[in-house]
Amino acid sequence: MVVSEGTHDFHIHKGMGLVKDVFSKESIMKLKGNIGIGHNRYSTSAKSEQVNCQPFVVYSMHGALAVAHNGELVNKGALRKQVLGRGVGLSTQSDSELITQALCLIPPDGEVNGPDWPARIRHLMQLAPLSFSLCIMLKDRIYAVRDPYGNRPLCLGKIMATNTDEINDGSGDMDRNEEGWVVSSESCSFLPIMKYFREVLPGEIVEMTKYGVKSIDVVPPPIGKSLAFCIFEYVYFARPNSIFEGQEVYSVRVRCGMQLATEHPVQADMVGSVPESGNAAAFGYSKQSGIPLGELLSKNTYVGRTFIQPSNRLRQINVALKFGPILHNVKGKRIILIDDSIVRGNTVGPIIRLLRRAGAKEVHIRVASPPLKYPCFMGINIPTREELIANKLKDTKEFAQNVDADSIEYLSVEGLKTAVQKEINPDSKTGHCTACLTGEYPGGIPDELTW
Amino acid sequence: MVVSEGTHDFHIHKGMGLVKDVFSKESIMKLKGNIGIGHNRYSTSAKSEQVNCQPFVVYSMHGALAVAHNGELVNKGALRKQVLGRGVGLSTQSDSELITQALCLIPPDGEVNGPDWPARIRHLMQLAPLSFSLCIMLKDRIYAVRDPYGNRPLCLGKIMATNTDEINDGSGDMDRNEEGWVVSSESCSFLPIMKYFREVLPGEIVEMTKYGVKSIDVVPPPIGKSLAFCIFEYVYFARPNSIFEGQEVYSVRVRCGMQLATEHPVQADMVGSVPESGNAAAFGYSKQSGIPLGELLSKNTYVGRTFIQPSNRLRQINVALKFGPILHNVKGKRIILIDDSIVRGNTVGPIIRLLRRAGAKEVHIRVASPPLKYPCFMGINIPTREELIANKLKDTKEFAQNVDADSIEYLSVEGLKTAVQKEINPDSKTGHCTACLTGEYPGGIPDELTW
Amino acid sequence: MVVSEGTHDFHIHKGMGLVKDVFSKESIMKLKGNIGIGHNRYSTSAKSEQVNCQPFVVYSMHGALAVAHNGELVNKGALRKQVLGRGVGLSTQSDSELITQALCLIPPDGEVNGPDWPARIRHLMQLAPLSFSLCIMLKDRIYAVRDPYGNRPLCLGKIMATNTDEINDGSGDMDRNEEGWVVSSESCSFLPIMKYFREVLPGEIVEMTKYGVKSIDVVPPPIGKSLAFCIFEYVYFARPNSIFEGQEVYSVRVRCGMQLATEHPVQADMVGSVPESGNAAAFGYSKQSGIPLGELLSKNTYVGRTFIQPSNRLRQINVALKFGPILHNVKGKRIILIDDSIVRGNTVGPIIRLLRRAGAKEVHIRVASPPLKYPCFMGINIPTREELIANKLKDTKEFAQNVDADSIEYLSVEGLKTAVQKEINPDSKTGHCTACLTGEYPGGIPDELTW
Amino acid sequence: MVVSEGTHDFHIHKGMGLVKDVFSKESIMKLKGNIGIGHNRYSTSAKSEQVNCQPFVVYSMHGALAVAHNGELVNKGALRKQVLGRGVGLSTQSDSELITQALCLIPPDGEVNGPDWPARIRHLMQLAPLSFSLCIMLKDRIYAVRDPYGNRPLCLGKIMATNTDEINDGSGDMDRNEEGWVVSSESCSFLPIMKYFREVLPGEIVEMTKYGVKSIDVVPPPIGKSLAFCIFEYVYFARPNSIFEGQEVYSVRVRCGMQLATEHPVQADMVGSVPESGNAAAFGYSKQSGIPLGELLSKNTYVGRTFIQPSNRLRQINVALKFGPILHNVKGKRIILIDDSIVRGNTVGPIIRLLRRAGAKEVHIRVASPPLKYPCFMGINIPTREELIANKLKDTKEFAQNVDADSIEYLSVEGLKTAVQKEINPDSKTGHCTACLTGEYPGGIPDELTW
Repeated sequence: MVVSEGTHDFHIHKGMGLVKDVFSKESIMKLKGNIGIGHNRYSTSAKSEQVNCQPFVVYSMHGALAVAHNGELVNKGALRKQVLGRGVGLSTQSDSELITQALCLIPPDGEVNGPDWPARIRHLMQLAPLSFSLCIMLKDRIYAVRDPYGNRPLCLGKIMATNTDEINDGSGDMDRNEEGWVVSSESCSFLPIMKYFREVLPGEIVEMTKYGVKSIDVVPPPIGKSLAFCIFEYVYFARPNSIFEGQEVYSVRVRCGMQLATEHPVQADMVGSVPESGNAAAFGYSKQSGIPLGELLSKNTYVGRTFIQPSNRLRQINVALKFGPILHNVKGKRIILIDDSIVRGNTVGPIIRLLRRAGAKEVHIRVASPPLKYPCFMGINIPTREELIANKLKDTKEFAQNVDADSIEYLSVEGLKTAVQKEINPDSKTGHCTACLTGEYPGGIPDELTW
Repeated sequence: MVVSEGTHDFHIHKGMGLVKDVFSKESIMKLKGNIGIGHNRYSTSAKSEQVNCQPFVVYSMHGALAVAHNGELVNKGALRKQVLGRGVGLSTQSDSELITQALCLIPPDGEVNGPDWPARIRHLMQLAPLSFSLCIMLKDRIYAVRDPYGNRPLCLGKIMATNTDEINDGSGDMDRNEEGWVVSSESCSFLPIMKYFREVLPGEIVEMTKYGVKSIDVVPPPIGKSLAFCIFEYVYFARPNSIFEGQEVYSVRVRCGMQLATEHPVQADMVGSVPESGNAAAFGYSKQSGIPLGELLSKNTYVGRTFIQPSNRLRQINVALKFGPILHNVKGKRIILIDDSIVRGNTVGPIIRLLRRAGAKEVHIRVASPPLKYPCFMGINIPTREELIANKLKDTKEFAQNVDADSIEYLSVEGLKTAVQKEINPDSKTGHCTACLTGEYPGGIPDELTW
Repeated sequence: MVVSEGTHDFHIHKGMGLVKDVFSKESIMKLKGNIGIGHNRYSTSAKSEQVNCQPFVVYSMHGALAVAHNGELVNKGALRKQVLGRGVGLSTQSDSELITQALCLIPPDGEVNGPDWPARIRHLMQLAPLSFSLCIMLKDRIYAVRDPYGNRPLCLGKIMATNTDEINDGSGDMDRNEEGWVVSSESCSFLPIMKYFREVLPGEIVEMTKYGVKSIDVVPPPIGKSLAFCIFEYVYFARPNSIFEGQEVYSVRVRCGMQLATEHPVQADMVGSVPESGNAAAFGYSKQSGIPLGELLSKNTYVGRTFIQPSNRLRQINVALKFGPILHNVKGKRIILIDDSIVRGNTVGPIIRLLRRAGAKEVHIRVASPPLKYPCFMGINIPTREELIANKLKDTKEFAQNVDADSIEYLSVEGLKTAVQKEINPDSKTGHCTACLTGEYPGGIPDELTW
Repeated sequence: MVVSEGTHDFHIHKGMGLVKDVFSKESIMKLKGNIGIGHNRYSTSAKSEQVNCQPFVVYSMHGALAVAHNGELVNKGALRKQVLGRGVGLSTQSDSELITQALCLIPPDGEVNGPDWPARIRHLMQLAPLSFSLCIMLKDRIYAVRDPYGNRPLCLGKIMATNTDEINDGSGDMDRNEEGWVVSSESCSFLPIMKYFREVLPGEIVEMTKYGVKSIDVVPPPIGKSLAFCIFEYVYFARPNSIFEGQEVYSVRVRCGMQLATEHPVQADMVGSVPESGNAAAFGYSKQSGIPLGELLSKNTYVGRTFIQPSNRLRQINVALKFGPILHNVKGKRIILIDDSIVRGNTVGPIIRLLRRAGAKEVHIRVASPPLKYPCFMGINIPTREELIANKLKDTKEFAQNVDADSIEYLSVEGLKTAVQKEINPDSKTGHCTACLTGEYPGGIPDELTW
């Protein structure tokens, strides 16, 4: 976190690990100020090291500057060359430092005068239009910015005053009296003391000061290009109670499950999910199919997330340790198991084996998203093509045989789009990036990284 | 953990914190041996300090001895006086040290000769019949023991040989070829490489050596007393896929939910649970009532368990941070929220408020166990009577008003017993401790602690 | 440290590592009380583990008891058997636990009644007369005890009141107004706010309460045995400004150096020491011989003590890193290098080589104590006989050749005794243990350890 | 440390704390390469934070660059403005980052072409001639550079091949067979496996590659300015066995002590030092005066250096804890106590009080350097003028009265210069910075820091 009291002497506290471990009461007390930005990094392109922790802070000729970045620059190689070519040394390989130094550099003559930061941000949008959501803090303001494609999410919330009854009751512990504004990648983080206000629009620059929030500009995507909000936020990344494009993520996932039931029905006694990622889709599948919904696996929360585990081998043991089959709903039953997505496919086999050993008569796998086939260069950490199960196997029949499933079926790309876009106002401009499913990249094929 | 290679030179590794933090690869590699016992302490009576970590190890006149203990001695005061009176200094206040030293002491003449450990264990059962499940390790054997009331659980499992097909597939990482035996408080811990075998019986002493397991004795409860297995293991403590008395805990909880629907029906659009503790009961309630089952709250797993939090105030904020309402299933709906139990009642209010702010039309609370009213002296950490919500309020109507619920209802004691005992073979002797619900203590009123 | 507020609920804080790392401001603030004892353990017989940290605390039938122990029980094997034979389990191999449990046990009929702790201590002195200095704390008193041989040191100091002028000036930070008493192994620890009072006598039991200090008893050594204060405290262990038997350690070491100059003179230009252990003896050698005293080696304090280093190889590199030769006093000169003692002899060679490379014309080694040849069973950590350089080489000539010295000479045993005893009042009973030099053990040959 | 295997992918390991704590065996093993630079920072101007740890590494348009810096830029404010004015953001306030970015920037047209690093270094010398010793590492070379005034030290050493006899013996643990070169602030760091070669000259740029070392250029100080090597290195900072300008620091300090005895003689029984800083000067004073040299204070090495302690109050207690008076040399004696310098004067009073309480008849303080009166802007951490004792008191008489000394006298500035320059070849250009003593700054009065 970086916090300002209105001067260029920012207070900074950063560290590696979970938020609760990095921030002690003592370190929080030192972060005095009226505005601040924070960042919780899930390392993708640059290494997981202290030096890459965000926000990135520099002192420029126009004062202190802190930048927090969600996303990944598709053309980082070209931008890096430009910045280095101006005689700047870069101390890390992170996009955040690159963006920060690019914002500091004197723009070509005539374009930007002095500390005109919105002009500098517009200039950055030309140099690197994809993908980022940014929080740029100066001593007395924050610019909240989404890239012109709207690839990464960003939304505004309002800090509610304490004399509002519902808040006094809700939190029980609020004693600051001012209103304020907040910006976040996901609206779920606003609970319980803030309220969702609206999304930052694709290409929009919102200025936040003590006088409130102000929309400075909305930059359209490059000519001939469409908006491309990451569809995988709906499928996998976002928390179910977050809101994008006016709709709750959970609702979208329920519709994915319903669509899946329509596309791939099967006779069974019980529908359940791989907890908790498939819960919403399982609810939708049960609703559409009329097959009862029930817990099939009990999750042991004391084991970490499989996405992060280092080796395949360990992953397989861990899966088995992580889930305990519920005999009541499994034994002697034909079951449909819903998951939100299948990436490497390492966990399906062990889970099916657990269910069969617990007495399941049939196990049908239904996946509430299409097969993942292509890499993402916009900030989502997808394994190499060779590691993706969808690129390894001929078809779902072979897949089912390999993992001893009675059947495996995926939601179609069209089905997913329908589920996502059905409830969006057709007048609103919208568009979704499905590159990881279709290979159609919104900004074209990215250049190679160099330095 | 304490491990033996067959000599009196036990290898010991203990520490404070989560298992994954205490045991590194390095420390595990040093724990060489053929037999071993471990303990994961949830501090109840004695303080949470390094010195109270189990297993407790001593060197006695008959060799090294390690003891791991689940439960709490009801008459610890009297036993403590006896042990101190023999001239032994006790370095902690833990029951485990007390039990260990009591086992070491020379029994009164004529009763026990030399290293006859089963006789010493029987003697201990007379001195302190309630409550404990024990693992007592000597250099070449382990005694697995339940107290004569059968208050705390204990069960045997079998380590499966790797040439069994299903295991090779299931774990993928097993390369030791021997069979073996394991003993645990809960059968859920046997997955994925061990198999549930049977319960250790109330009062039973099971000897585990390299030659296998052998039942040494089964000591009945004191004359005039009945078996008293803790009913709260079914309600709250145990993992849903554990097995007690021949039945899966999840099944019992489903029956509690069904019984609850019968006792306290209500018109509603959606049944859901406080995740994840109320899941099974909500499933039962939905099944019995026909009202659809759905997720109402999304749980943020990065916040700790409320039972452990230090202050009431913090607890209230944390609850609100921990759960995000799912608009899809809440907005404009009449909802029934199921929880497994209500202890202090601190979390109900904030949760209802979250649901109302998310647009719930009605919120009915149904609790799948009777009100908790009395302290436990047998190892369950229940707050003082003043802190228990059931002792603070006149009735459920007042409770409902206080927390802005449309209604609150509990399962009856009889209903709970029915749900628990319905599927148990009526021929098997059985009996359950309901002291925390009814004030009827199986071993009478405990003496006071002294030292 | 263990501290008492006058009740049996002692406050305890213990840990591994340096005092400054184990005790934070926070942990010190929790140690409230009027009396307390502490211990800084240099691990000798029992392993360096948390569980062996002293003081050892137990709750006995007569209340809480804390014991801190300096020394090592020669007959620990026999005492251990006795304690185990009474049915006590011992959780460590430390002498301190053994002593504590032995004090708790009910003494044979007729000898001790109830909580008569001095009688229990006298009984312990019979069971194990060698060697210990003990601080035994009860809720309202401390017993300071030396073994009947007087093998380990112990002395009393007085905490000076703050209204004394010299203290107010001296410390500048003293704001408690009471006087008090303190007991320590070495008087040097009394500075700057306490004053040396007197030694605890061999075999003496001193009781310290809020009413002051009181000598309870002085137990003589077993019949036919003499006092045996460890002579190696003078030679090596004690800080130079500590006082034993009425004389400053530094003075004794100066006399050792003078005696050494008399016994083994040599023509040279400069006398210096291996800093800082040989400083006092070098001063004495220079004084006696008239050869100028000067620094030969500059010590780098950022490298640890060689006694503790794990491998021989590392030790040799470390020695070279630790000392830098001072050209001004070494180049072109004949030098005499004084050390207080030579144990393994690993460091002499590398040091001589450093001096020769720095241009020394001659290097003569003079050691201010006799060769170390025998193990100590009374608390001094001396390597095995095979590791002692004095047991490896034929004579000092061979030694000198091996390490490229022009000569090496030791102080004689008689010379050491003379230097130590010269200034002691001949009327006072005294006697010194020289077992490590002569093999003459004051309590006979110790039994073997068993358990 | 930063290490290169000949590519731009430098291996970096940095941390806060002592070298032995920051570098584990594991982290050292990862630092593979043929060349490397390290830095041990004693924080002066920039804060003691992870982010300010050196070497500072950036990736420039001409490849990776690592910079380690000893000293402080006098005109950092002006240079900072220049760098910021070029559009570079600076992430810290450290001179090292400033120097690194200044080296990266494209120099004004015509002056430097592309990756001509020596030209860039010469350009830096013009922008900021005072003060720095630098190690600048590229993928395959290191530039060792001293500023044109020669204010900070830097010297070259040679890594000796292992087949040389003396090395095989000296280290006992050398198994790499190549020769190599090393550069360091102090020659004492070369022991035991490297050999002092020569100083890097003031203004010299030395290039170190696998082909050896090569002098690229020697830049003279600005016109009208003289060389200005920090005289305080001789007085206080350097280790006694380091070599500057062809002479051992210890020898210079001995001459300071002799000069002091000549300037300020006094009748006394014993000369001693505040260990260990005054040792050499006490030796010189004793030699010149004929008064015997002896230890007066025994130092407890387990207490930190007073220069670093946070509060005055704590410092006074700590001083008393740190030194124990040696009665043998103090009691009943007239003593002269030598210290190398007096900065804040906090420790003199407590030390004198210790000596008087130990029975000293007279205590005369002699300081082997002139009074410290002015701040340093070239890298030496001197307290503010108000904190310097020499600026607080009228004269040494008042000083002596305040601290209860019988007399206090300082070495004169001329005396110090004589002692330093006496043995330097009069033909060699030389010159010393005495700014902290005289207020005469070699580069004029520094500008103020701004950003």
